[in-house]
Amino acid sequence: MMDELKLIHHDGSNSFSVRKNQDEFQLRVKVPRILEVERIAIRSVKDGEPVFIEATKEQTSPYYHWYSAHLKVHNPRTNYRWFIGGGKVNYGWLNQRGLHTFDVSDIHDFVITTNELIPEWARRSVIYQIFPDRFAKSDRKYPIPDWAVPRSWDQWPEGSSPNTSFEYFGGDFWGVIERLDYLCDLGVNVLYFTPFFRAGSIHRYDAATFDEVDPLLGGNEALIALTEEAHRRGMRVVGDITLNHSGATHEWFIKALAGEFPYRDFYTFDKDLPTGYECWLGVPSLPKFDYRSEELKSALISGDNSVLRRWLRPPFSLDGWRVDVANMSGRLRELDLTHEIARLARIAVESEGPEKILIAEHNHDAAADLDGDGWHGNMNYTSFRNPAWNWLISDSMSTFRPAKHGNFVKLGGIETVEVIKEFSTRQPFQTYASSWNLLSSHDSARVRSIVGSRELHQIAIAFAMTMPGTPMIFAGDEIGEEGLWGEDSRSPFPWESEKEWDHATRQTYKDFIAIRKASSALAFGGLEWLSQGENHLVYLRDDGKERIISILMRSAAEVHLHESQLENNGFELVLGSTPISRDGKITLKLNSPGFSIIRLK
Amino acid sequence: MMDELKLIHHDGSNSFSVRKNQDEFQLRVKVPRILEVERIAIRSVKDGEPVFIEATKEQTSPYYHWYSAHLKVHNPRTNYRWFIGGGKVNYGWLNQRGLHTFDVSDIHDFVITTNELIPEWARRSVIYQIFPDRFAKSDRKYPIPDWAVPRSWDQWPEGSSPNTSFEYFGGDFWGVIERLDYLCDLGVNVLYFTPFFRAGSIHRYDAATFDEVDPLLGGNEALIALTEEAHRRGMRVVGDITLNHSGATHEWFIKALAGEFPYRDFYTFDKDLPTGYECWLGVPSLPKFDYRSEELKSALISGDNSVLRRWLRPPFSLDGWRVDVANMSGRLRELDLTHEIARLARIAVESEGPEKILIAEHNHDAAADLDGDGWHGNMNYTSFRNPAWNWLISDSMSTFRPAKHGNFVKLGGIETVEVIKEFSTRQPFQTYASSWNLLSSHDSARVRSIVGSRELHQIAIAFAMTMPGTPMIFAGDEIGEEGLWGEDSRSPFPWESEKEWDHATRQTYKDFIAIRKASSALAFGGLEWLSQGENHLVYLRDDGKERIISILMRSAAEVHLHESQLENNGFELVLGSTPISRDGKITLKLNSPGFSIIRLK
Repeated sequence: MMDELKLIHHDGSNSFSVRKNQDEFQLRVKVPRILEVERIAIRSVKDGEPVFIEATKEQTSPYYHWYSAHLKVHNPRTNYRWFIGGGKVNYGWLNQRGLHTFDVSDIHDFVITTNELIPEWARRSVIYQIFPDRFAKSDRKYPIPDWAVPRSWDQWPEGSSPNTSFEYFGGDFWGVIERLDYLCDLGVNVLYFTPFFRAGSIHRYDAATFDEVDPLLGGNEALIALTEEAHRRGMRVVGDITLNHSGATHEWFIKALAGEFPYRDFYTFDKDLPTGYECWLGVPSLPKFDYRSEELKSALISGDNSVLRRWLRPPFSLDGWRVDVANMSGRLRELDLTHEIARLARIAVESEGPEKILIAEHNHDAAADLDGDGWHGNMNYTSFRNPAWNWLISDSMSTFRPAKHGNFVKLGGIETVEVIKEFSTRQPFQTYASSWNLLSSHDSARVRSIVGSRELHQIAIAFAMTMPGTPMIFAGDEIGEEGLWGEDSRSPFPWESEKEWDHATRQTYKDFIAIRKASSALAFGGLEWLSQGENHLVYLRDDGKERIISILMRSAAEVHLHESQLENNGFELVLGSTPISRDGKITLKLNSPGFSIIRLK
Repeated sequence: MMDELKLIHHDGSNSFSVRKNQDEFQLRVKVPRILEVERIAIRSVKDGEPVFIEATKEQTSPYYHWYSAHLKVHNPRTNYRWFIGGGKVNYGWLNQRGLHTFDVSDIHDFVITTNELIPEWARRSVIYQIFPDRFAKSDRKYPIPDWAVPRSWDQWPEGSSPNTSFEYFGGDFWGVIERLDYLCDLGVNVLYFTPFFRAGSIHRYDAATFDEVDPLLGGNEALIALTEEAHRRGMRVVGDITLNHSGATHEWFIKALAGEFPYRDFYTFDKDLPTGYECWLGVPSLPKFDYRSEELKSALISGDNSVLRRWLRPPFSLDGWRVDVANMSGRLRELDLTHEIARLARIAVESEGPEKILIAEHNHDAAADLDGDGWHGNMNYTSFRNPAWNWLISDSMSTFRPAKHGNFVKLGGIETVEVIKEFSTRQPFQTYASSWNLLSSHDSARVRSIVGSRELHQIAIAFAMTMPGTPMIFAGDEIGEEGLWGEDSRSPFPWESEKEWDHATRQTYKDFIAIRKASSALAFGGLEWLSQGENHLVYLRDDGKERIISILMRSAAEVHLHESQLENNGFELVLGSTPISRDGKITLKLNSPGFSIIRLK
């Protein structure tokens, strides 16, 4: 394929897709003038039948022709692709995977929905994930429940043992409040807490109630104080809810066991199962909800005073929810109510105000669930974390053996881009760009252990901060904490050993957080791949107001970008190494891992 | 990618996927021994969560290891792919698109459903499509309706004119009965008729009733006689039903206009529309059904005496239905009831006996509608007719300008295989292999006009007859009739000018029909691409009992197949040119278009 064919570009960002009114979008595509194309059209589908809309030349810049067409959205979710014909293209289809010179199916079409987008603040944020028991501990003392196995703050979690779910280190919300200055200094502006409801374990994904904050964390009073204090500082707070199951000690489940209406129908009882009821992956402590019960839907999601809704209101005033195992919620054998749950949850959350957000946990192929009318976005394992790990993983950590979610194989840059496209291009761009770019979480190894060095960790940070999506930092990553798997990564934050922190890495986080929050291109821009090779990745983020190029090198490499194609008047360095401009090219050559973030003029 | 990696193979045919009981399948994959892989597993999804099932080595042949795993189908539609790790593969995923050395999404996974398959006879058949007004005319005289514009049998349709839908040539079912000997001689064993209900036009997609056969065709009596006579000869008869709309003269629509219950709800009335009601692509004569009406669903599809059901019973005893514009049926703005309609129609058809079939017309990307519990199969435009045309189209017919359904661009063999895979690999293999391989239809140009020569027409026949799917011949194609678009292709069958028929092409059809009906590999085998180039395509069909290789060359080309990889003991020629076996290779070299169909020993 001619190189110029790869420069034909459209994406779902505002630079290329402008909503003119409720159901009409102006769509634009840029095509190198040298290709001398003859016909440009949008091919969309209306009530199941293809329709063509001719595009017209709207604008000509030194290197490109810009074509434009108006698409009336007839079905709430509308897919489309561009036909680009004649000239040096001859026969071309542009979809989210790029240009194809033969017929393609609809599956990677661009997608528009008429739903409301995620609120702007969510796109402009950097999220900090906190596992409440392990981040910060106040001086308060709480009665310790029977199940808890007390540990001191300077111990390391045992890891895989009978105690795994019960090791109690004593972090609480009052402790978090004491560390808000630290978090403000770091620059993060969203705190996402794993579950805080009273439960039967320390991970708290087995809620015993949805009515109160665990007293071990300081109870309702502490959460109220925390959200107030966070909001006062301009930070948001997001909770974590399990829509798939409750704990077996949940008040609903206890009533269900007693046969009490309507709770009996909240769960699926089945004498043929070893547990007597459906539960998450067969784990008896996690009975699975049955959404055929209208009363359950109302109590948990859609009722006026539902769990989902009331915690978003004062005095708690959460700013949104992350939904645990969203991929399984509502799915059982022949039942698939997941889309309905997501849609109801979106309506519930939005009914509490236009500033509330709803993010799914779906850690494999989530695209089919991200249709734009349910979850605002997703925790982005497949099209961010996995490829980031795969490209930057150390030789000693890499293996061909896949894990259930993701893998540890080492991939070159070209394959890395393929993987990102594979998982990000079957959904509206807006849900992709509203997803969370994580490098670590309480469920996984830490990025530092995966990549094995400060230099590669810093490239991983650059990647997370400059790709579409909202960066999420797992508490401790910023000081270079290590961890080889979920439990191993849940070590208490080492406040007492500040001298041993990786301060250089923390500075990189601080720099990037500041850049990310201030940049409209990084928050709202599209994504254009400019160059990729075994050891380098280069991409452009453009929101029509600002153009940022990210050049990442995992080892020695050399990159040239053509200034004529970029139509720039020079550039300025934002962070990292400075490329040189010569002979109409922007060139970056490095002899070791590094990055360069530049802003085009 | 190493060549040997491409030889790793699995598909949904019986050779690789054996149903052991209601919900358990034994799945097998063959891997060249030379690759020395270390771990093989199936990765499936259960209630939305990935699961791995380890495979074990089951068998070793001279060139391959065969691995096997048992998959319990938990959800009615289950997707899976193979992980193939270690050795010279290192990290591989095998899905319906082939082997990938990086993570892939679920979208091209293999798919299993627990539904009943299409009846065997449908897989073993060759279908003959008849547009009733144009195939054969008896001596009977019928009162001619006002709308009809009478023509004599030796005229050519006017084509695009106000008369287009009304040109009446006078073919009838009694005429068809007189030609059954001809059809038996040709060898076809299914007759598919475009609509036969009394209507307001000659194409009859605007039914005025679903209660009687158009008197112009001989009425109910003629259809009864025809199906009896056809069945006596071992032929089946398939009808054509519009589930998307009726005609505006339909008795239901007339009652609806009068506001009569329940008919008013059968359609969508809307004062803001120019017509006052929703209709097919805005054509007033084709008011669209509204499936929110339970009474409509019952009357047309699911009721005991529904239209769909009662024509499958004696005395008419149709063997199945082809569903017109299935892609639009049930779709309107925010409504998408298409899957429900398909599912209900499948239940309705199967309730009339296990031998009845249900085929959709969906002439663009149909995969999302072919989930295995609705339509048995589809009229295969996208993964058969279009790529066949694109590969064999004459230079004079080719153009880059796409039509709404398909296109006339000329493509090489490599791109042709990509297109076939693009559209066939997001559905169960069984629905793909139950679809109809058409080269022409009453809606399109004729294949002979597309390819422009007898030689290329014969290759097209070889392609249609040896690919997965049931071949469908549009009446007249077998004698080399030409036609440049739908109406132009609907010329009356020239019984009087037998001397001018292309008898050589008819002989090719006869030969291939005989081969197709007798071959279990062509009816039930999987599909393995062995070689493709600009001018050649080579593929293997293997059902575990018979192995047929099809070698097609659109111009001079040379192909070599490695006998060790094929694990064969020679071969025999089935039809076409004879390859030679030498130096462990099967070689075919041709200096002009041609084909070779061989059976491996």
